[in-house]
Amino acid sequence: MSTIVDTARDRMRSAKDAARTVGLLSDAAKRDALLAVAEAIGACADRIIAANVDDLDHGRANGLSTALQDRLRLDAARVAALADAVRDIAALPDPVGRVLDERTLPSGVRLQKVSVPFGVVGAIYEARPNVTVDITALALRSGNSVVLRGGSAAQRTNAVLVDAIRTALDSAGIDARAVQSVDDFGRDGARELMHARGLVDVLVPRGSAQLIETVVTESSVPVIETGAGIVHIVLDASAPLEWARDIVVNAKVQRPSVCNAVETVLVHRDAAPRLVGPVVAALQQAGVTVHGDESVASLADDVVPATDDDWAIEHLSLDLSMRVVDDLDGALAHIRRYSTHHTESIITTDDANAERFLAEVDSAVVMANASTRFTDGGEFGFGAEVGISTQKLHARGPMGLAELTSTKWLARGAGQVRA
Amino acid sequence: MSTIVDTARDRMRSAKDAARTVGLLSDAAKRDALLAVAEAIGACADRIIAANVDDLDHGRANGLSTALQDRLRLDAARVAALADAVRDIAALPDPVGRVLDERTLPSGVRLQKVSVPFGVVGAIYEARPNVTVDITALALRSGNSVVLRGGSAAQRTNAVLVDAIRTALDSAGIDARAVQSVDDFGRDGARELMHARGLVDVLVPRGSAQLIETVVTESSVPVIETGAGIVHIVLDASAPLEWARDIVVNAKVQRPSVCNAVETVLVHRDAAPRLVGPVVAALQQAGVTVHGDESVASLADDVVPATDDDWAIEHLSLDLSMRVVDDLDGALAHIRRYSTHHTESIITTDDANAERFLAEVDSAVVMANASTRFTDGGEFGFGAEVGISTQKLHARGPMGLAELTSTKWLARGAGQVRA
Repeated sequence: MSTIVDTARDRMRSAKDAARTVGLLSDAAKRDALLAVAEAIGACADRIIAANVDDLDHGRANGLSTALQDRLRLDAARVAALADAVRDIAALPDPVGRVLDERTLPSGVRLQKVSVPFGVVGAIYEARPNVTVDITALALRSGNSVVLRGGSAAQRTNAVLVDAIRTALDSAGIDARAVQSVDDFGRDGARELMHARGLVDVLVPRGSAQLIETVVTESSVPVIETGAGIVHIVLDASAPLEWARDIVVNAKVQRPSVCNAVETVLVHRDAAPRLVGPVVAALQQAGVTVHGDESVASLADDVVPATDDDWAIEHLSLDLSMRVVDDLDGALAHIRRYSTHHTESIITTDDANAERFLAEVDSAVVMANASTRFTDGGEFGFGAEVGISTQKLHARGPMGLAELTSTKWLARGAGQVRA
Repeated sequence: MSTIVDTARDRMRSAKDAARTVGLLSDAAKRDALLAVAEAIGACADRIIAANVDDLDHGRANGLSTALQDRLRLDAARVAALADAVRDIAALPDPVGRVLDERTLPSGVRLQKVSVPFGVVGAIYEARPNVTVDITALALRSGNSVVLRGGSAAQRTNAVLVDAIRTALDSAGIDARAVQSVDDFGRDGARELMHARGLVDVLVPRGSAQLIETVVTESSVPVIETGAGIVHIVLDASAPLEWARDIVVNAKVQRPSVCNAVETVLVHRDAAPRLVGPVVAALQQAGVTVHGDESVASLADDVVPATDDDWAIEHLSLDLSMRVVDDLDGALAHIRRYSTHHTESIITTDDANAERFLAEVDSAVVMANASTRFTDGGEFGFGAEVGISTQKLHARGPMGLAELTSTKWLARGAGQVRA
């Protein structure tokens, strides 16, 4: 079913052609296709792992960091997990065809606003082969074609994965041109993707802050910005010690490398003598290095002096910045300056302060008395996560399948004209 | 209340500062502020008209076209209409603070998804002073600041309007920095606006296709693409003559200069002998020049031969392109190639064809048996219209006040951490 293609644009055109039929598939057809994809990934495990070993060898020879090698690595268990993730996505309800608004005009014309696929979803990401499978499954479940540009470090692995997926689609009677990779065009592939207005409907970058920044700045295709999280927790004057300690430790330690992990804790001056010592001790016991300002350092042992940079970086590690602020206004001003508008939480028993924080903080998710780790599509009950949007257009916060759809107004009349 | 500002960026920063308080205003406060703005515009009518006369004199001296002069011109009646439009917007329900989703997580954390203002809305538009007032009123009603870049042809008029609006806001106790113009920075003002990521949350271009194209291509701020409409009507084999004639004439003639006016009519070959003659005659009687292919020319008098360009341009005048197609597939293929994804309509009594058209055409509004002129915020019952989005991200089709809001997730817990 695949055609001979020559350029990145040709492949995008093929994806767009295929989107016409993929967008009209029934719920059952999409589900069955994804179950076939899951089977195929399982059945190709050996081939996938062999390609992955090649990628890893190549990476090591080219000085790929150990952390990136770990992200890149697929073993039998990880391949099985990839297939399971596709099955989970297959089991989700169809996001297409929901009636979101309905009204009858005075003239009798009946209007419906329905959810429809975007058409073609582009993805630019780094050395994580799981994104190849995830984003493809999410795009297909929502009736979209997908054009993939993964990192060159995972190129061999991705090629085998895409091949397996396309073969499975073909067997399921689905136009396999719906899944395209432009990995083999290198940076040109990424560039073409960023400028494919009219062919690609939305572009989702996933990866480092730098990659996202590049895509947002360069792309003329609409982008959904995801990811970077300089996440704050404020310990208000009334913060109960137990909540403060448990939430800060959970938010930092449970998975320090992800975007919803806390980076900076701001402590109300009145609560500092009561909270800083035990919270820092609990963090240190969990292996965290605390970077603190002078007030923090005066209230706890083994605090590394914080520099101005500490407030502005996403550690993504067992490091945490801590600062004492004069009051809630001081905390809000710090957050306005340094937040990436991902998630912030306040720990307080003062309802007025909680509500003020919820109203005034301009972030995708604003919490009172909960761990920032809850900012997650799975935790929110979406069943899958496309990413966490930190922009305000179209989607904000954890994105599920619904965020991979657009809308269309349908109007049904009987000859009406406008008066 | 206004501060001394020096650069376009300073003004955008002021708008962003002001957005913090404007975003928290109550429904009543926003309504009262807009009523004060409407009063002020009425009270300043003489000053506005005097500035407008200056702009018109300047425009004539610089060769501004008669059509643009007409768009630019404000007389007493038009100024009164501007003030009335602000009153209408004041009367609309508050789009901020709607609870769009609500769920309690297994841990007991209560989640709410609420509508919030974007923050700062940017607008780039041409010589229409009414856009200055409209977009400012819409932005303020939805709790946003606004940064305006109008055409230089209307610069004096816009300056007086902005001054009147800001004075009224100040008197109403609202931070007048919420309304900023960068007109006096010329093209640099537009450029700064397009690259004000972090200061401006969304940019709405309004005007010619070329202006919109420039903004979409250049801007690193998220853009909502509006406007251009190469709108099609398909006359299916079963199209009743009366519906076909009435709808085509209404869609072309009622207001030919707007984006929802029809540009191209595609006639099913089987219906052509029955429909082309009377539909063309009715159009010609209404003053329309019909540009037709050979089949059309063979079935009607006084048809101008259509060139390939005729399918690809938005006439915005009493010109209409007409083509005979072999069947519904041929119509759909033509639309795929030439549509700007604004509005298309099919005239048919065949339900299966109607539903196929509604499902397959990839446009913001897809109709069966209704005039394309219904694609309008007012007609849809939105009470006001920000523009008509032809993109798929965030908003599609007529945009009301709700489309000038983003969302935010609020999470209220009692010490929960993620397991």
